[in-house]
Amino acid sequence: MPQHPADPADVFAWIDAAESVRERAGLVRTLRPRPPVSPLLDLASNDYLGLSRHPETVRGAREAAECWGAGATGSRLVTGTTELHAELERELAAFCGFEAALVLSSGYAANLAAVTALSDRGTLVVSDAGNHASIVDGCRLSRAATAVVPHSDPDAARKALAAHEGRTLLVSDSVFSVDGDAAPLAGYDAVCREEGAALLVDDAHGLGVLGEGGRGALHAAGLAGAPHVVATLTLSKSLGSQGGAVLGPAKVIRHLVNTARTFIFDTGLAPAAAGAALASLRLLRREPERADRAREVAGRLYGRLTASGLTAARPDAAVVSVRAPSASAALRWAADCREAGLSVGCFRPPSVPDGISRLRLTARADLTGDEIDRAVTTIVRAAPAGAVDC
Amino acid sequence: MPQHPADPADVFAWIDAAESVRERAGLVRTLRPRPPVSPLLDLASNDYLGLSRHPETVRGAREAAECWGAGATGSRLVTGTTELHAELERELAAFCGFEAALVLSSGYAANLAAVTALSDRGTLVVSDAGNHASIVDGCRLSRAATAVVPHSDPDAARKALAAHEGRTLLVSDSVFSVDGDAAPLAGYDAVCREEGAALLVDDAHGLGVLGEGGRGALHAAGLAGAPHVVATLTLSKSLGSQGGAVLGPAKVIRHLVNTARTFIFDTGLAPAAAGAALASLRLLRREPERADRAREVAGRLYGRLTASGLTAARPDAAVVSVRAPSASAALRWAADCREAGLSVGCFRPPSVPDGISRLRLTARADLTGDEIDRAVTTIVRAAPAGAVDC
Ligand SMILES: Cc1ncc(COP(=O)(O)O)c(C=O)c1O
Ligand SMILES: Cc1ncc(COP(=O)(O)O)c(C=O)c1O
Repeated sequence: MPQHPADPADVFAWIDAAESVRERAGLVRTLRPRPPVSPLLDLASNDYLGLSRHPETVRGAREAAECWGAGATGSRLVTGTTELHAELERELAAFCGFEAALVLSSGYAANLAAVTALSDRGTLVVSDAGNHASIVDGCRLSRAATAVVPHSDPDAARKALAAHEGRTLLVSDSVFSVDGDAAPLAGYDAVCREEGAALLVDDAHGLGVLGEGGRGALHAAGLAGAPHVVATLTLSKSLGSQGGAVLGPAKVIRHLVNTARTFIFDTGLAPAAAGAALASLRLLRREPERADRAREVAGRLYGRLTASGLTAARPDAAVVSVRAPSASAALRWAADCREAGLSVGCFRPPSVPDGISRLRLTARADLTGDEIDRAVTTIVRAAPAGAVDC
Repeated sequence: MPQHPADPADVFAWIDAAESVRERAGLVRTLRPRPPVSPLLDLASNDYLGLSRHPETVRGAREAAECWGAGATGSRLVTGTTELHAELERELAAFCGFEAALVLSSGYAANLAAVTALSDRGTLVVSDAGNHASIVDGCRLSRAATAVVPHSDPDAARKALAAHEGRTLLVSDSVFSVDGDAAPLAGYDAVCREEGAALLVDDAHGLGVLGEGGRGALHAAGLAGAPHVVATLTLSKSLGSQGGAVLGPAKVIRHLVNTARTFIFDTGLAPAAAGAALASLRLLRREPERADRAREVAGRLYGRLTASGLTAARPDAAVVSVRAPSASAALRWAADCREAGLSVGCFRPPSVPDGISRLRLTARADLTGDEIDRAVTTIVRAAPAGAVDC
């Protein structure tokens, strides 16, 4: 006979055990609510262009809430599509160079939608080992077979694609979120063309930073609008808002409307988020230099930190990743920076694929020279023993 | 040798075929952007309390965007937790009678988080056959075994639970989204207590409608705050905003913070959405009669429609589901209502588990007597032949 606990209070006793394991490993995560005006210099957010508090972006949110209400009130297929959503979709597609776009409630939902709708039982999805959790979950949700291939290795992708009869989909981040390195998009595209595969690229960290005026990594690679290419985006990083999108040929977008569960069975994006993203997009179109500036700041941070002996990955976009000798050292390093008035990201297992802990800095376009100086000085001063050549 | 299409333009040729199948079956879905002020009477949205455009809710969105910015700027674990998120979590938990709460970017993400974080390889998840797509996807994403049991059948759930050694989780909607029928929560709770299972209930359609002052189905059933019970919510229906939440014992919430991928790897909910939901919650606390009114309107719609000979499910909350003789008849019926100035939902395959198409009406608390009259007259007049006893 199976033995089940009799007391309902014991049902979650296993969580106590899991918590002890996390505590002993020094891997407990807690939430730290921030005040409206933080005393900290922010190099931790993904607000790459500093737009989340820009008056025009905030006005976009406010006016949309006032005009359309606080919520979309239903699925995009029922009452949840406003003219504002349609406008945002048209402008996003045009800006990035695609035929059509579909807005979802998050970038996470966009990846789940794209991967599942573009694959079926007979499909092989080939996925870069460095891909974001939402792509990994998309692969798990899809009924397709998945082959995870070594990070940024088009040859490995080619071999996996060539081995499959039937439909194939190659999926990759454009810029990987942990180290900020760019994917070999030209190489990935070449193997897709050779093998007749579709190419799905998550440009979450490329939009607003890479390509002409921030049009993204696919635009930069000359792949925007190609008939076999689909992009996913988030509205929550460079555009300073919330939401996600899928961009591609119009028929791919129609197919998503009809089949993607995270689109069909989810309430539409709140009008305020759509309005803010649209305002940011228009701002970026008018001020394309913001994208260049983000990359420039990243290059300066990288140059200064490595000149001080720290080990960092050369930034391809606006993320600068600095190696730490251990998870606990990374945690202490980030805490010491914080103590000194600087907020930096800290990536530790299980959020890092290779087990190497890092400080993760984001190079906001609106950082001043003084702020960059302050950030570098603080990080170098707080560096743990062993950080110099870890 | 595998044969792959050589021309990238052919990579999505399979979509043309899928589109033809949908067209022949009359199942093509298209988006219909609505204007700011719709001429239609809305019985299709999930804005049960009519709060999405309430001045206080809209002000909540606006003030939050102005105070906190348009986006959360990062994961809740990095920069994405504001004091506003923490406040919303405290008030949601207190209102619904739970120890703690965690806010996510959607109800969909909340269900994915709860199901995956509360199960592991050794767990059996027992899932009601009528559950929402996001619960089904949560089961698919989890590494647990899943047993789908007949709809609203505690005995079947007991048998499935009893057959498993090791951890078990019973998961159900509180109010099923298609027919609006309530789950047998007391029965489900009894079998969970007997079998030592955890109980996870998605109260998306119960919050704001069921229980004292809209505290939800679990509060109504005396199960809020029980040590083996976890709830998921959406902020996008009765609260008229966007977002989702998980409510439960504090240690369950801490466990989600540390392990739930759709929480950890997703940008935090936009401040405007959190602010709007909080404003709606406070409004509901002050005006608890809104919840009763939604149920009353549902009862009146049901009574009048069935008195006219239509077949509807007796509403347990604020959803009234009316049977249609076929998918195409349902589609025409909804279109005729629309033509006559009334917006109703239309559920067809594959969105209905049993293949039966329906009109789906939502009984908003703010519908006037005249509006109810108009809605009933329109629906009855437009009813297709065969609707009377289908
Ligand atoms: C590469 C990548 N894709 C997708 C996402 C998810 O986007 P969102 O936060 O809008 O859900 C993120 C981060 O949040 C990301 O870094
Ligand atoms: C029962 C149920 N659960 C969850 C959801 C998802 O919530 P959200 O739209 O906030 O993602 C919905 C509908 O949208 C629902 O009907």
